[in-house]
Amino acid sequence: MKLLDGKALASIVLQELAKQSADIVKSGGRSPHLAAVLVGDHPASLSYVGNKVKSCETAGFKSTLIHMPGTITQKELLDIVIQLNNDPEVDGYIIQLPLPRHIDADEILLTIDPRKDVDGFHPENFGRMAQGLPAYLPATPMGIMTMLERHHIETSGKRCVVLGRSNIVGTPMALLLSRRGYPGDCTVTIAHSRTENIAEICREADILVAALGQPLFVKEDMVKHGAVVIDVGINRISDSEHPKGYRLVGDVDYDRVAHKCSAITPVPGGVGPMTVCALMMNTLKAAQGLIYPK
Amino acid sequence: MKLLDGKALASIVLQELAKQSADIVKSGGRSPHLAAVLVGDHPASLSYVGNKVKSCETAGFKSTLIHMPGTITQKELLDIVIQLNNDPEVDGYIIQLPLPRHIDADEILLTIDPRKDVDGFHPENFGRMAQGLPAYLPATPMGIMTMLERHHIETSGKRCVVLGRSNIVGTPMALLLSRRGYPGDCTVTIAHSRTENIAEICREADILVAALGQPLFVKEDMVKHGAVVIDVGINRISDSEHPKGYRLVGDVDYDRVAHKCSAITPVPGGVGPMTVCALMMNTLKAAQGLIYPK
Repeated sequence: MKLLDGKALASIVLQELAKQSADIVKSGGRSPHLAAVLVGDHPASLSYVGNKVKSCETAGFKSTLIHMPGTITQKELLDIVIQLNNDPEVDGYIIQLPLPRHIDADEILLTIDPRKDVDGFHPENFGRMAQGLPAYLPATPMGIMTMLERHHIETSGKRCVVLGRSNIVGTPMALLLSRRGYPGDCTVTIAHSRTENIAEICREADILVAALGQPLFVKEDMVKHGAVVIDVGINRISDSEHPKGYRLVGDVDYDRVAHKCSAITPVPGGVGPMTVCALMMNTLKAAQGLIYPK
Repeated sequence: MKLLDGKALASIVLQELAKQSADIVKSGGRSPHLAAVLVGDHPASLSYVGNKVKSCETAGFKSTLIHMPGTITQKELLDIVIQLNNDPEVDGYIIQLPLPRHIDADEILLTIDPRKDVDGFHPENFGRMAQGLPAYLPATPMGIMTMLERHHIETSGKRCVVLGRSNIVGTPMALLLSRRGYPGDCTVTIAHSRTENIAEICREADILVAALGQPLFVKEDMVKHGAVVIDVGINRISDSEHPKGYRLVGDVDYDRVAHKCSAITPVPGGVGPMTVCALMMNTLKAAQGLIYPK
């Protein structure tokens, strides 16, 4: 069994990005610049945004954190988005989700200029991705694709089951794995809460991507021998023996499943770091004008 | 076995659209207006555009056919697109595909204003569809969804196999069938030219959508008893006994497959008329400003 160590791989990719960023500066350009908008003080969001800012430092990117109180109005948040769209010094930016309930998140996300949408959440980027046009790919699926590629995992003709159909992970993951090229050319099945006989369907998978957000959902009897298992879940479950009173687990029952796999991601330290890494890759592309010519 | 007669259903839906169109005119509005751009004299394209113009008449819509020679330049075609974008009298328009080889079709399609893109080909509409936002759905998958709905075909939890991963049929069809709601909530597998054991995968399908463009690809042994089979293919095969020297067949070997199905579409007269019908439905929505507020 091969451990797909996302932390280690992300560190390698960030060093490569740092080199490219330094080359840009050497040849008279400015560092890639990522801005992040954080609304409120959700602990997980604070931690995610913190990781992104830290990764910018590692990659030699400039970062700007715009931290607004949870009481921000729709109009105020929209104004920030419009300002970021118009700021020529910002190459790309993200709005950390989730947003407070009183905010219309769709309106905010639709106002982001697709050319700066390095999270790949805007429908224009989603559509371009689906149609095989140049696009910012959504960070989590892109991180997983990078992981498959760097570990030379065979995909062509493989059966792949994606558990979950969210806009930001399951659905784009299914599209990317089914499209032409490498990594891709998989026969992909999208399974979800309405799927019947889900264990049986999972057992068909050469590559299983779990993105349901249900702790330890994938059990030993749901995985074929030799499968590649990618665990997108990151769930807190209470654990009185742990100093914090909880521990993090994925959507996969790692302890019982790992021995059956040819390769598997750990949680934490698997998909999570690759997601941040993909965001950095998109930001570099934005700075270089590789997706949308400047 | 139930025949899913697209011609009969399209005729019913067009009558409903005619009523809605008449109501708009009665209350002082103008008729929905669809424009179609046809480049060159490809016989199939002429026939498709002809059907669309005819359907506009049936539905009480205004139609404008812009027929340009196959020698048109990129610049000239772009100018027509921009003019249509800016014409307040045109609610929606289509560029009939395929375009001549010297034309950069991607550039043309990306220039179409998403608000008038009643074919649903623009990435912004594709992304909105994928994300469950209001969007013009691509006409063929939308026609098939309408057919499933009007025939009350159960979809929730059903296994669905889509053969083909094109941008305009296979991929959006898979997305629509996997999303929440009715018709939808299927467990969808996207199969294609790189899929291994494709016969076995087809046999898993409660609903099988064939959109490969390969005449008579789906054989009797590839279909489960009681399956619903939707045939998107429309292929000419030579037939010396036929007065025209050819006949039209689908991607499904209808004569041998039909007896196993609970429901099946004929070719011609199945998906084809529903595709045109979906285009008309989108045009009415455009006129009403239902997708993008006016």
